[in-house]
Amino acid sequence: MTRFALTIEFDGTPFFGLQRQDNGPSVQQSLEDAAYRVTGEDVRLHSAGRTDAGVHALAMRSHMDIEKDIAPFRLMEALNSQVRPDPVAVTHCEIVPDDWHARFSCTGRSYVYRIANRRAPLTLERNRLWQVPQELDHEAMDRAAKALVGLHDFTTFRSVHCQSQSPVKTLDLLDVEREGEEVRIHSAARSFLHHQVRSMVGCLALVGMGRWGEERVAEALEAKDRQALGLNAPPHGLYFVEATYPEDA
Amino acid sequence: MTRFALTIEFDGTPFFGLQRQDNGPSVQQSLEDAAYRVTGEDVRLHSAGRTDAGVHALAMRSHMDIEKDIAPFRLMEALNSQVRPDPVAVTHCEIVPDDWHARFSCTGRSYVYRIANRRAPLTLERNRLWQVPQELDHEAMDRAAKALVGLHDFTTFRSVHCQSQSPVKTLDLLDVEREGEEVRIHSAARSFLHHQVRSMVGCLALVGMGRWGEERVAEALEAKDRQALGLNAPPHGLYFVEATYPEDA
Repeated sequence: MTRFALTIEFDGTPFFGLQRQDNGPSVQQSLEDAAYRVTGEDVRLHSAGRTDAGVHALAMRSHMDIEKDIAPFRLMEALNSQVRPDPVAVTHCEIVPDDWHARFSCTGRSYVYRIANRRAPLTLERNRLWQVPQELDHEAMDRAAKALVGLHDFTTFRSVHCQSQSPVKTLDLLDVEREGEEVRIHSAARSFLHHQVRSMVGCLALVGMGRWGEERVAEALEAKDRQALGLNAPPHGLYFVEATYPEDA
Repeated sequence: MTRFALTIEFDGTPFFGLQRQDNGPSVQQSLEDAAYRVTGEDVRLHSAGRTDAGVHALAMRSHMDIEKDIAPFRLMEALNSQVRPDPVAVTHCEIVPDDWHARFSCTGRSYVYRIANRRAPLTLERNRLWQVPQELDHEAMDRAAKALVGLHDFTTFRSVHCQSQSPVKTLDLLDVEREGEEVRIHSAARSFLHHQVRSMVGCLALVGMGRWGEERVAEALEAKDRQALGLNAPPHGLYFVEATYPEDA
């Protein structure tokens, strides 16, 4: 048995999420089916994070165990060939020790959320960004975001379906920047709660629109109550950017 | 009658081209149909350039004449509403003099061609870039490109279906740059022949792959013969970037 670490990129639009679902297509099933066609083995894919339907990934990290004798480059090429036409690509593949685990060894996860701040509907980037027609004050959003950085009880920013044992997490980074008509929210943490990024972005967008004062974000956090959430941003603006591991340092 | 200048962005994937076609959907038809629903008038769209099936536009310039009394902002919003779900957006709209013509007044056109220089298939940017798996030497491509800049007979780089009266054109710019795994070719001229950008890009790609020596591009130009063309790059990597007019200066 050899353990292969994979770096995976995908367009989340046609999927019900990264992880296998009973009710629709998933990235995991696409790749496990491709691996079966390559190896004849029932391969299980483990990944650093779960993603909701419609959420994208630039460099998800995953692993799979394979009995067949195959070189990493050949496995990558074969998976990319067999996964077609699904919009999933393996961009890197290497052999890792048997005790390396894409999810449990992961010590850092980062996301970017992309907002198209314009009135015109999206064409080339449809399903790639959340379109917000009202002018956003990205500097106010960035200031308000700072209230969420650090060790907090993120109950307000957590889906009722979240399976995490504790709502207490340390948010390492939450930065808002603008480039032309695009506003990007960067976030990083050891781990996130279910819907945490989308919930934080939704509240920051309300600040950017002027519908919330900046202090409302801190108040929502303090409330520790899902009812205090202003808005959950839609999934299609969210990208899993990267997963980091101790050996990366 | 009022003449409105429009700036148009579109995803060329589902269209047979910008201009109206007998055999399939076009951007022109989408917008003329939308204008009919807004005004009740048979409106004709005139544009700075023609584009092939699959070619995209970031800021095409067009105009239409309308009898109905409507403000530019309202017209833009109404067209964007009525053109859905087609991937076309009007990003700017203004009133121009009756003698301003999107095509005949245009004195400069620019394109960018995007190549994804990587082995993995495209996911999020499928139909947005030409994927070339072989490592491209973008510096050799940039050097070879310089042979095409200036006043030349571009017969080699012209489609047999080209309707231009003369194959002699002045190419003002042809630059190749790399950003990570993306290679971009920028070109600008007063006007281009049919397939000219895709034909130039195809030959430069052959240089980048090492299949052509750099001098072959100049030789192909000198041949003034379509048979000397090495490769016509596919349409889905090509973007019409902007059209310029004397009053922009």
